[in-house]
Amino acid sequence: MNRAFAPLANDRFLRACWRQATDTTPIWLMRQAGRYLPEYRATRARAGSFMGLATNVDFSTEVTLQPIERYPLDAAILFSDILTVPDAMGLGLTFAEGEGPCFAKPVRSATDVAQLAVPDMDKLRYVFDAVTSIRRALGGRVPLIGFSGSPWTLACYMVEGRGSQDYRHVKTLMYARPDLMHQLLTVNAAAVAAYLNAQIAAGAQAVMVFDSWGGVLADGAFQAFSLAYTQQVLRQLARSAPDGTPVPRIVFTKGGGLWLGDMRALDCEVLGVDWTVNLGRARAQVGDVKALQGNIDPNVLFAPPAVIAEQARAALESFGAPHTDGTRTGPTQIFNLGHGISQHTPPEHVTALVEAVHAHGRRMRQSPP
Amino acid sequence: MNRAFAPLANDRFLRACWRQATDTTPIWLMRQAGRYLPEYRATRARAGSFMGLATNVDFSTEVTLQPIERYPLDAAILFSDILTVPDAMGLGLTFAEGEGPCFAKPVRSATDVAQLAVPDMDKLRYVFDAVTSIRRALGGRVPLIGFSGSPWTLACYMVEGRGSQDYRHVKTLMYARPDLMHQLLTVNAAAVAAYLNAQIAAGAQAVMVFDSWGGVLADGAFQAFSLAYTQQVLRQLARSAPDGTPVPRIVFTKGGGLWLGDMRALDCEVLGVDWTVNLGRARAQVGDVKALQGNIDPNVLFAPPAVIAEQARAALESFGAPHTDGTRTGPTQIFNLGHGISQHTPPEHVTALVEAVHAHGRRMRQSPP
Repeated sequence: MNRAFAPLANDRFLRACWRQATDTTPIWLMRQAGRYLPEYRATRARAGSFMGLATNVDFSTEVTLQPIERYPLDAAILFSDILTVPDAMGLGLTFAEGEGPCFAKPVRSATDVAQLAVPDMDKLRYVFDAVTSIRRALGGRVPLIGFSGSPWTLACYMVEGRGSQDYRHVKTLMYARPDLMHQLLTVNAAAVAAYLNAQIAAGAQAVMVFDSWGGVLADGAFQAFSLAYTQQVLRQLARSAPDGTPVPRIVFTKGGGLWLGDMRALDCEVLGVDWTVNLGRARAQVGDVKALQGNIDPNVLFAPPAVIAEQARAALESFGAPHTDGTRTGPTQIFNLGHGISQHTPPEHVTALVEAVHAHGRRMRQSPP
Repeated sequence: MNRAFAPLANDRFLRACWRQATDTTPIWLMRQAGRYLPEYRATRARAGSFMGLATNVDFSTEVTLQPIERYPLDAAILFSDILTVPDAMGLGLTFAEGEGPCFAKPVRSATDVAQLAVPDMDKLRYVFDAVTSIRRALGGRVPLIGFSGSPWTLACYMVEGRGSQDYRHVKTLMYARPDLMHQLLTVNAAAVAAYLNAQIAAGAQAVMVFDSWGGVLADGAFQAFSLAYTQQVLRQLARSAPDGTPVPRIVFTKGGGLWLGDMRALDCEVLGVDWTVNLGRARAQVGDVKALQGNIDPNVLFAPPAVIAEQARAALESFGAPHTDGTRTGPTQIFNLGHGISQHTPPEHVTALVEAVHAHGRRMRQSPP
């Protein structure tokens, strides 16, 4: 594999991950390559199916770059599905139209759990090839973020077999047979670590763990069944890329605002927060050791552009004044939504958001309080 | 109306609301009259439809009492639907089998909002008649809790027209036209206050505001669009029943754990918390001015009885030692789930929970630390 990737032109996002000063606040959006973009829908139509899109290196490269071509975003994120790892474990992933993902063989019994193993990473080569292809196609414009679901979040899908409203099956297993759940999560943690390390080897310049369903757990259960296994993943991750560049790690627990105090101790550089979190308070709580990523409600993007700009400014002001001294490290914000962008978002509203964040972020640095 | 209700035999719940000492921790369960009970399903079948059940005084009396007959619970809660008030506003409520509630005329435009008004409480007489009927049928065994959805939670249903995953319509209205949303919420607050006051007049001995969807709001928006209107409701509520007995008020915001500091200032006696909240920390935060209600995950009830008992004890211990001096007031816990009980719950598991709470609550009072 050719390791000579182009040098990075825009390092705003990576600097912010390391809590270094930047000229303005970096911004990228969860699910930025997606259905709200007409060009995505066109590629998706050519691919024939969602998995046809997600497993094809050329298609996933194309859609990953689409939002980067359209908006001055500060990072790209690998286009892939969150369920690639359990699929490689042999659970039989399918996507029924309009119904979301479904596993043919959900994990419910002791026998099911005993049969789980870290999958051969060769089965996921299409993902790593996509990472290298995207990195080349980006040509150093912005850094590329790799990602995985957290061990707990993958477990939710693996046990439920599909999306759930109440997480009844996975929580029943957890409460009734915590030993089996720990066994399952141990496999998941090793698999996720191998998966993210292979993404780093292939060219990912930062990695993010999506703990999308950590927030459905009870206090206590979150720490034991989600946080502990995210920490297991983090401990096993490569600290730098093949070229020696350090690789920052982001952890996002949707609905995890109450546990920021616990997450402060995670072995990672950035914590993602959703819109329920007060950024000023979160900064005071963890900003001395973690950068913060987030957090406006994706529904803000349905309001007129003037309101979007106002909400963006409010989020920046809530986080508070950034550093102006380029040599120091300290609290930094990476602007993002608090969850994936909605498929119903008008694309021109994203332009308004990115412009507002960059402009106001610059303004805050020019006139510190 | 005959006001001479029977004297109250079990006042554990009401004493705990007022942060007075009790012999053990009181317990009741959200949605305790419901589909997990075979006797409920039998009544529901006789009623023909959900609204046939909810609007009939005899049926709603019958199902409200079913869990009281079966378990030594410390309170009954009016069996009714959360959408009775918007239905009385003329939005055309229907229940499609397996699809949940649906409004024929959702509120979307300025014209729609302008047409809203506090409904004639006579249209809700079936609810107040049920309250009186249930109170009589209880014969003083346990107190009766009346309830309503919060202004924001009702607004979610009124604007979305049905259940929602992303609250896109109601949040678009809120962000794009906050003036209209405030207008809508002002009507809702007046309607909810009138509705709860009529329940108090009819015999409710405590009232609860279910802010089921407050937790989907962003920090800032929650305070402005949910909390402020819950407070408007509370301010308008009767402080005592027709016989002069004070009526405690409970506010439960699902997913509101991050905002307990704000909710501490609400003009009410009890705050409900869900399972994401650490009871010890919540007690430290608000226990000097509010009783706390909650909070185990309803999914705990799918585990074997021994695990249920263990989780109940853990929740009691997490809240911490109660008062043993019967004359003082101070932090109290009202045991409950963190959300409504699941329809899939084995009824005998509820027996295990209630027994464990009462037994361990008694034990904690006998041997204070």
